[in-house]
Order: sequence, then C-alpha cells, then structure tokens
Amino acid sequence: MTRTLPSQIDLDTVAELAAQLRVDSIRSSTAAGSGHPTSSMSAADLLAVLVARHLRSDWDHPKSPDNDHLVFSKGHASPLLYSVFRAVGVVSEQELLGGYRRFGQRLQGHPTPVLPWVDVATGSLGQGLADGVGIALAGRYLERRSYRVWVLCGDSELTEGSIWEALDKAAYYELSNLIAIVDVNRLGQRGPTELGWDLDAYARRAEAFGARTLVIDGHDLRAIDHAMAAAARADDRPTVILARTVKGKGFTEVEDRNGWHGKPFPADMAERAIAELGGVRQLALRGPRPAATPATNGNRRAATGAVTLPRYAVGDKVATRKAYGDALVAVGAHDPRVVALDGEVSNSTFADEFARAYPHRYFEMFIAEQQLVAAATGLSVRGYRPFASTFAAFLTRAHDFIRMGAISGVDLGLVGSHAGVEIGADGPSQMGLEDLAMLRAAHGSTVLYPSDATSTAALVEAMVSTPGISYLRTTRGAYPVLYPAGETFPVGGAKVLRASDRDQVTLIGAGVTVHACLDAADQLAQEAIPARVLDCYSIKPIDVATLAAAVDATGGRLVIAEDHHPEGGLGAAVTDSLLAAGRSGLSLAHLAVRAIPGSGSGAELLAWAGLDGDHIAAAARRLLDRT
Amino acid sequence: MTRTLPSQIDLDTVAELAAQLRVDSIRSSTAAGSGHPTSSMSAADLLAVLVARHLRSDWDHPKSPDNDHLVFSKGHASPLLYSVFRAVGVVSEQELLGGYRRFGQRLQGHPTPVLPWVDVATGSLGQGLADGVGIALAGRYLERRSYRVWVLCGDSELTEGSIWEALDKAAYYELSNLIAIVDVNRLGQRGPTELGWDLDAYARRAEAFGARTLVIDGHDLRAIDHAMAAAARADDRPTVILARTVKGKGFTEVEDRNGWHGKPFPADMAERAIAELGGVRQLALRGPRPAATPATNGNRRAATGAVTLPRYAVGDKVATRKAYGDALVAVGAHDPRVVALDGEVSNSTFADEFARAYPHRYFEMFIAEQQLVAAATGLSVRGYRPFASTFAAFLTRAHDFIRMGAISGVDLGLVGSHAGVEIGADGPSQMGLEDLAMLRAAHGSTVLYPSDATSTAALVEAMVSTPGISYLRTTRGAYPVLYPAGETFPVGGAKVLRASDRDQVTLIGAGVTVHACLDAADQLAQEAIPARVLDCYSIKPIDVATLAAAVDATGGRLVIAEDHHPEGGLGAAVTDSLLAAGRSGLSLAHLAVRAIPGSGSGAELLAWAGLDGDHIAAAARRLLDRT
Repeated sequence: MTRTLPSQIDLDTVAELAAQLRVDSIRSSTAAGSGHPTSSMSAADLLAVLVARHLRSDWDHPKSPDNDHLVFSKGHASPLLYSVFRAVGVVSEQELLGGYRRFGQRLQGHPTPVLPWVDVATGSLGQGLADGVGIALAGRYLERRSYRVWVLCGDSELTEGSIWEALDKAAYYELSNLIAIVDVNRLGQRGPTELGWDLDAYARRAEAFGARTLVIDGHDLRAIDHAMAAAARADDRPTVILARTVKGKGFTEVEDRNGWHGKPFPADMAERAIAELGGVRQLALRGPRPAATPATNGNRRAATGAVTLPRYAVGDKVATRKAYGDALVAVGAHDPRVVALDGEVSNSTFADEFARAYPHRYFEMFIAEQQLVAAATGLSVRGYRPFASTFAAFLTRAHDFIRMGAISGVDLGLVGSHAGVEIGADGPSQMGLEDLAMLRAAHGSTVLYPSDATSTAALVEAMVSTPGISYLRTTRGAYPVLYPAGETFPVGGAKVLRASDRDQVTLIGAGVTVHACLDAADQLAQEAIPARVLDCYSIKPIDVATLAAAVDATGGRLVIAEDHHPEGGLGAAVTDSLLAAGRSGLSLAHLAVRAIPGSGSGAELLAWAGLDGDHIAAAARRLLDRT
Repeated sequence: MTRTLPSQIDLDTVAELAAQLRVDSIRSSTAAGSGHPTSSMSAADLLAVLVARHLRSDWDHPKSPDNDHLVFSKGHASPLLYSVFRAVGVVSEQELLGGYRRFGQRLQGHPTPVLPWVDVATGSLGQGLADGVGIALAGRYLERRSYRVWVLCGDSELTEGSIWEALDKAAYYELSNLIAIVDVNRLGQRGPTELGWDLDAYARRAEAFGARTLVIDGHDLRAIDHAMAAAARADDRPTVILARTVKGKGFTEVEDRNGWHGKPFPADMAERAIAELGGVRQLALRGPRPAATPATNGNRRAATGAVTLPRYAVGDKVATRKAYGDALVAVGAHDPRVVALDGEVSNSTFADEFARAYPHRYFEMFIAEQQLVAAATGLSVRGYRPFASTFAAFLTRAHDFIRMGAISGVDLGLVGSHAGVEIGADGPSQMGLEDLAMLRAAHGSTVLYPSDATSTAALVEAMVSTPGISYLRTTRGAYPVLYPAGETFPVGGAKVLRASDRDQVTLIGAGVTVHACLDAADQLAQEAIPARVLDCYSIKPIDVATLAAAVDATGGRLVIAEDHHPEGGLGAAVTDSLLAAGRSGLSLAHLAVRAIPGSGSGAELLAWAGLDGDHIAAAARRLLDRT
C-alpha cells in the first residue's frame, strides 16, 4: 500500500524547523529561569518531522474533530511543545519568551489544557500514553474517524507500569491509530536510565506487548520521516517508534552530558548554544490538514427528552451497585455519549449490565486501574461521558490519574463498589476505607454515596451532566429501598428521613449507615428521644443548609456514622461545611472505622466498627447524657 | 551444575498432598459460604510440589531468618494457602473448617500478617510480586542470606503495570532469589483473560523484561518439580515459571468453566467434588528445612548510643528537603537498619546524600512509585527501616500500596518533597496537594510536616522508631531555620512560636505556612493585635492539648493556613481533634488551595492561593471584625 506524503515541506526546511525548535526551547527556558531545554533538544528532530509532514491538524480550530492529537507524555519537554506552537503560529514569540512558566500565563511548566491544543495535563510521567489509549479508542470504535494519536514519550517513563498497561490495552484493542514516539536520550533526571541506549531491549518489550516497533536514529530526518509514514499506514497494532537521541543535541557543550536535566542554560551558555545552532529563526509553517470525516460518523449527538430510570418499590432490598448497573443502562439508552469501562469486575460492580446492553460502548480494561481511569480521561477528551468502575479499594491504584484528570478538567464518572467493612468476609484488602478522602481531595470533584436504589439511579443520571470528576460509592449488600420512584436527588442536597420539632439529636449517615441511623432513631423513639435522621447522599458538595438547620434544631448534637476511616470522609465533610458556615457549638460523636478490620459478616463488622444502630443510638444517648 | 533435591518426599505423596489441598480448599470455602475454591484448585499441584520438595521453611519458627518466603500475590487463593498451613501442621483442621472467613478469626478472606507465616497482606492484585522484590533485595544485598522468595501469581494480575515494574526491578537487581510462579488458568473473575493460555506470549513479555522463564504444564508434577529445581539454581535473573493450569482442576463439573470464580460449591457439589478427588485426607508433612546462614551475615543489629543530627544556625535559609537528606545520612550512620529508596529524583529529594554515603543501603527504583513503596514494604518485612522518597505528588501513584502496607502493618518512612504550590514554576502536575489527605486516611499512619531544618532532622530521627507508615512532607524552597539545634520535636507535639496572655487569635500553620503565619503575626503586632502562632509539625497525631489551650486563650478564633487542598489536610486534622476533644465555639478561617494553580514563583502562588502573610493577617482581622 502506498500513499502520498501528506505535505510538501521538504526535509531541508524541516531541518531548519528543528533548529528553530531547539533555539526557541533554549530561549524560552533561559528567559524563564527554569525548564528542560536538553530534554526538548533531544526530541526536536522528531517533532519537526512530525509537525511538518505527518501531524494532520487545523491549528486554527484546535477542537476540529478530525485533527490528529499530539500528547506530550514527557510533559517536561514543554519548551519544545510551545516552540512547536510558535512555529505553527498559534503562540507568539513574545508569549513564548515572556510567558513561559510565568504567573498567570498559559505556557505552564508542564502542559495543561488551559491551552486549546493540549488535550490532557501531563508531567506525571507514564500518563500521556495511557490517556492516548482512551483518545484512540474513541476514534477507532466510537467515532470511526481517521485521526491519529501521536504521543511523545521519554525513555525514563518506560519504567512506569502504566506504560505497559497502556501498550497492552492498545494492542488488545488493535489501536493502529496510536503511535508512541519514544525519545531515548539515555539520561534521566539524576543519571543514566536503566536500559540506556539499548533500543533492542525496549523493542523486545514493546513487541512482546503487541506493538509494532520501529527503531531509528532520532536525529536522522529521513529515517524519522520513513518511520512516521510507516506508522501512519494501517496495521492492526499500535506503533512504537524507538528513537535513539542525544540529550541536549545541537549544543556540544551539553550533548549527552549528565547533570543538565531540568536546567536552563545561563545567558552566556544560551548565547553560545544559539550561535552553534545557527541563530534565531522566524520560520512559520504548518503541516498537513486533516481530511474531513463524514459528519454522520460518531454518535456524540446530544441527548434529548427524559431518561426513563429504573423504578424500585419502597422496602424491596436492592444493592446500590445493582441500581448503578440498572441506571447506567437507562442513561446509556438516552445519551449515546455515555460509555462504560470496568477493571475486570463488571459482574461485581454491575457494569456488566451496560456491557450486555451496549457492547460497542463498553471497554473492558481488565485488571489495570490506572489504564481504566486514563482511558476514561481520553474518552472524555473526545466528548464522551465515561463511567469507570471497580472496587472502591482498587480506585486508589489510580489516584495519580484521578489527580491529573482533575488538572485536565475532564468530565467523567468513577464508581467504587464494595465500599467499607460492610463487604464482610473478603477482608480488609477489598474494603474501600480511604476512597472518600481521596475523592474529596481531588480538585473540583463531586462525591456521592447513596443509601438506596432510587437515589442511586437518580444520582447516576445527575453524574452524566456533572462537570469534573464525579464519584459514586456503592454498597455490596442489598438494603431496603427508602425512596419512591420519582423522588429527586439534586447534587449538593440531603434528605431528612426523620424530623420533628422536638428533635434532640441529629443522626447523620450516608450509604449503608443511613439504614443504621434509621434503626437507631427507631430505638431512640422508643425511649422518647426524637432524633433527626439525615441522608447525606451528596458528600461533596454537601447540603450545609440542611445540616445547619439540624444543628440549630438539635442543640448542635450530631452523631455522624461512616463506613470509612475517620479522616477525610463524611465526618470531615459535615464539620468542614458547618465550621465554614460559622456554626459553632457542635457536640459531636463521630463513628468511623478506627482499626484494621478482619473478615466476618457485614453485620458483624459494622457492629465491630461501632456503625450499627445500637452503637449509633448509644452515641446519641451519650451526647444527651442519657446513658 | 547439579544438586541434590532438598527433600525426599516422593511425587506419589505429593500427588496425595495436592488432592488434599484441593479437598481442603473446597471444604473450607464451602463451610465459610464464600471464597475461591476454583482459583485454589488450579494451583494446588504447584503448591504441593513447592511445599513438599522446594520451599525451605522451619514452620515452627516462622520468623527464622533463613526461611524461604512464600507470598500469595493471588491472595484470593487463600483456601489453598490455609490448606498448606494445615498440611504442614501449623493450622488445625478445626480452624480451617471453622475459622475461615469468620469474624474474629485469623484465616481471613485474603491473607494478612495476623498469621505469622504471612509476610504481607495481599488481595489487591499485582502487589505480592512487587513486595517480593523488596524481600529479595534484602536477602541478596543486605543480609546475604540464601533464602528464596516464592511468589504465586495469578494470570489475571499480569495486566497490572506493577507486575512489570516488579519484574523490571528484579532483573535490574539480578534477583535470582525471586521466583514467580504464575498460575495461568485462563479465567479471570468475569471471563477469559486477555491472553488466555497463550503462555508463549507471557513468556515473551517476561523474557523481554529480563526474567528467565520456564513454561510448564502446571498439573504435571514432574515438570513442576524440574522447573522449581531449575529455578533454585543460581542464575543472575529472577525466574518466572509459567504454568498452564485448569481452573477448578480435579472436579470435572467445573473444570475450565467460566462463572465459577469466587464461588464456593454448594454442599452437594462439594460432596461430589471431594468424592471425585478421592475423599478427605489427613496427610501431615513438611518439606526441606533451611540451612542456617552464619549469624554474622546481615547487619540488622540494633542501634546504640545517640544519633548526631546535623545542626543548623537559626536564621540560615535551608530547605527542609535538604535537611531530610542530611538527617538521613545521620540516622544511617547510627542505625544499620536504615535503608533508602528513591524514584529517580534523589537529587531533588536529597536522598542522594544517603546514596553517596551508604551506596550499599540505597536502592534506586527509577520512575516506578508503586515498586518504590512495595520494595520498602518488603525491606520492612525483613526488619529494615526503609525511607522511600519522591515528589509528594507522585506518591499518589502508590496509594494502593500504601493502603495495603498499612494492612500489612509494616514500619516504613515515606517522604514527599516539592509539596504544594510553593514549588512554583513547574506547575500543578508536580504539586502535591492531596498527599496529606491520602496519608492521614491510611490506617495507623503518622503525618509530619516540618517548617524548618532543625525540626526536619529531629523528625527523621523519630521516624526510625515510629511504628506503621510515617510520612514526612518536605518543601522545595529554602526558608529560615526557626529552632536551635537540640530542640526536641516529639511526634504528636506542636510548637508555640508566638504567645502572650493577651492573644486575640491563633494562627496555625505547618511547613511553609508557618513562615507566613509568623509574617502575619508581625503585621498584626504592629496593629496591636497579639496573635498566637502554632507550628503543627505533627499533623497526625496532632497536639490537641496545645490546640485546645490556644482555642481557650483566643476566644476560639483560628486561622489555619495550609499549602494543600482544603479537604483532609491540616485544617481537618485541627478541627477533627478539637471537636473530638469537645471544644465548641470555634470561629474559623481556613486558608487552603481552592483552585487549580498554574506556574509562577512560589511567592506569587502562595499569595494567589491566599497563603501568604498578608492573607493570613487579613483573615485574622476578619475574625476580629477589624477589617
């Protein structure tokens, strides 16, 4: 199969472009007083060839759906990326030299999507390629568009397991539209990499993981050009271009020398470097443009009409994880942007209901939680609304990806099942007891923890239109449905399940502890102690008005019960919000999981942790001096 | 090279043992009503050969230093592990049948070190092999003992990137004492694995990552025996035994059938299975015992005398990350159990000082934070006191390993540098803003965040003898030394830096914000507003007595400033402790990082986040209605 090269820019001009990219990487970092010029210089030839002759982009319309994607997995090479942006005319020389790494400016130390040509924040290594898998999945399976995803990787980051999760999934899903370009410059931050310039060793690994690999001299423009042309040709595998490069290439004083990672050149050195590179250039050029795909492709049309949520009868016992699966099918029927992913536990999280209903919008990620969240991130970049599920405990595996997803500003749903000691016999390794703290601390996140099937379904629907990272915590066991179908559950709300004008204490639960709070209230009622019961199904944001009203009504006496470690979860959410609202005079009993659980039944363990109705009632009595 | 087989138990007896292990796996899980019999049955032949003929263990003395280690990375095969324990006579039949997965019992659903023969908690897949790397590092490099580390892995978990981080490091460090046995039974929880029975594909991957691989039929006792004998022979590589097995092997009704993961057999099926396997057996046997290593080997002798900590002059500007490196060298000189690891940023964390001083006690983990923490976990198992460092932001990558480390009860130090927006120009991807929430929520953890070099050094010394996971948060920039050499900083304490009997407001900082609080106090003093200043260098546990005294002295008016997201960090630690102590009437200003930062100088970003002296003083004035 042959094809015409997509651009007519000749390699002599590309060489000039490469020199400009090096010079501009030096100028911008020296002007900023920080940054990574040598890590940029090693990859300058790769980027020059890519941008001039292979990357298909309508730079004036960065969100044009057929543009190729360019992800800098080695985000510290931001001077190179921004020098590319200058070369194609979307960032000015003035901004490059005066704005890089400066306060209030968009050319940050590591790329973030405050720049419209940047899809995802990078700088935590090993993530860009994983995000690229998600972008490529959308192109190949959902949109059927011909865009390619070009990811510049560093060699140092190939020691991150997430890189191998990414290649494994790229191969499994035959993502021929994903091309990793590895800048093997042999030097990491503090010294030589593990494998140095043993490109064959890298090649064996990438091949073994199912990639097509091309080993080249990363400073031979013709070799780069051939490799990129080959990579663009259809195959059923992702491509990994392994390019042997020299860190600091083009400035002999620093070439291949350790000790120059992440250091800008002092002014005099920068001057010598620029002179050696032939001086400042003012090249402005653009490479090929994308061919438009028929507008009928893809299925990201907006949803219309109302979702028909599943209905549950009050009193029936239904696990919230089951309601998640039911509701995901319902929102999936309504909104074609909804896609689901799971980490090989879909029969536990009930994501398998969606997988059966919409197999083409379901991506099995097997046991690779980092890639699970990264793929969701990439799908979100393409406008989809991914829901990624696994056990709550195992979402901790993806913490760094969640953190970076928040910086990327992606909209996606995470679902953690099997939360807390409630799961019982499987023991502590499977009990999510830190997830609320982790997800609350993510910037811009929403944290939801429903107690019954009706509220779960409503919240799943709400998550589809919730910006940022939203998290749904579900429970393993089946508990009574508390709310009739049709009840509304706005994000940021709470439900008052018991209330009177004589309430003496407020019992606050979320998820499984709501049922225990109701039990406790029943016990207390028998002792003529009326108790208010709140269901804080929305933990972030939390319903401070309802909380404050309860505080005022019950003399500040609060029992908070959560199936989670005491730090950073429901208790903290409640008290943070009340204190921020100026409510003082709190008299608090905070019941949480304060020791390492073992196995047992859910009921045994909830009692052991002090989270059952008996313990909640006892805590209330203590607050009232009624013991 | 030939060697005598270490044991005389013949393979016919081994076959009987394998049948017993299967029968007991069935009996225990059926009795418990949950568990994973089929995942145990696939690996029963492997374990029977291993335990009878290769694993060298003095079962009556599980902490005997020359014992081989046995790690079930596939922790869900706990019925098999506990059946092994019964076969060697350390767990009774009664306990196996009556205690498995029961409340208050030690035979938990997934193994934890409440059992003395279990080194680390497993059950979050992909971790056991990574922990084994740490155990093997100790044996080969620190203790020079001949114990081997045998790790049973599942095939499903080979999709976790952490497995490849582990093999990569095992090969890099030539851990010939590490043997992974992969039970390739082709079926995961919800269906077929990615690679099924393509053992050659697994072998290519493991070989490419530097392991010696042996592909065998996992039900052919002779083949298993030969492979294990070969694995025990010296090589300079870790060994991966890839065993093709059948899930549910031995019970034809379920053999190789999907849908039987994690399900005990109902009583009638169990009866048929046991009959097919030849009935219940009462075999009791033990395999080879370890040869004793000369007692002079290893260097884990207890420290004696006092540490000579580095000394800093008050007022000098020293980064706490630098003081960490200095102090680590000092405690390393004193205590040979102290070892250090870093994730390829040792020149930023200053772990490189230790690496230069004690190269044989330093392990470079390159950019692989999961393996960084896992190796520390394994080293802790062997009695060392590891300190593992990277940027605070990147410790999130290891969250699941930290969580499991807490369940394992290991004692280790984590050090996160470059915390908060203070780092400046590098931008949000490099800013740890969630680390305090993550580490506070870890069970049994200690969280320390010193403001100056003197306190940093003292806290590093304290960490050596602090049980559980202790975390030190360090700052990038250099700030004045506040405390004279010799000052003491007990874990759980706080320092009162400004106080009078007329204080009107308390300013609470930790780390970098302590300096801003001092600045604010100086500003307020000029306005005749005396302010108390607290340095909460110990965030967990926190000094509630000092906090409560300040609350009482200053009318409950607190300004808390932290370079962290608002959730789960210093603010929550302060208010959680005060509310738990019954202090009400708090009037709070909580200053934290509430938006996504960009680049800039540290000072610019601290001001942007509202964390500089000006903002803290302004918050204090607002609390006093003095604006």
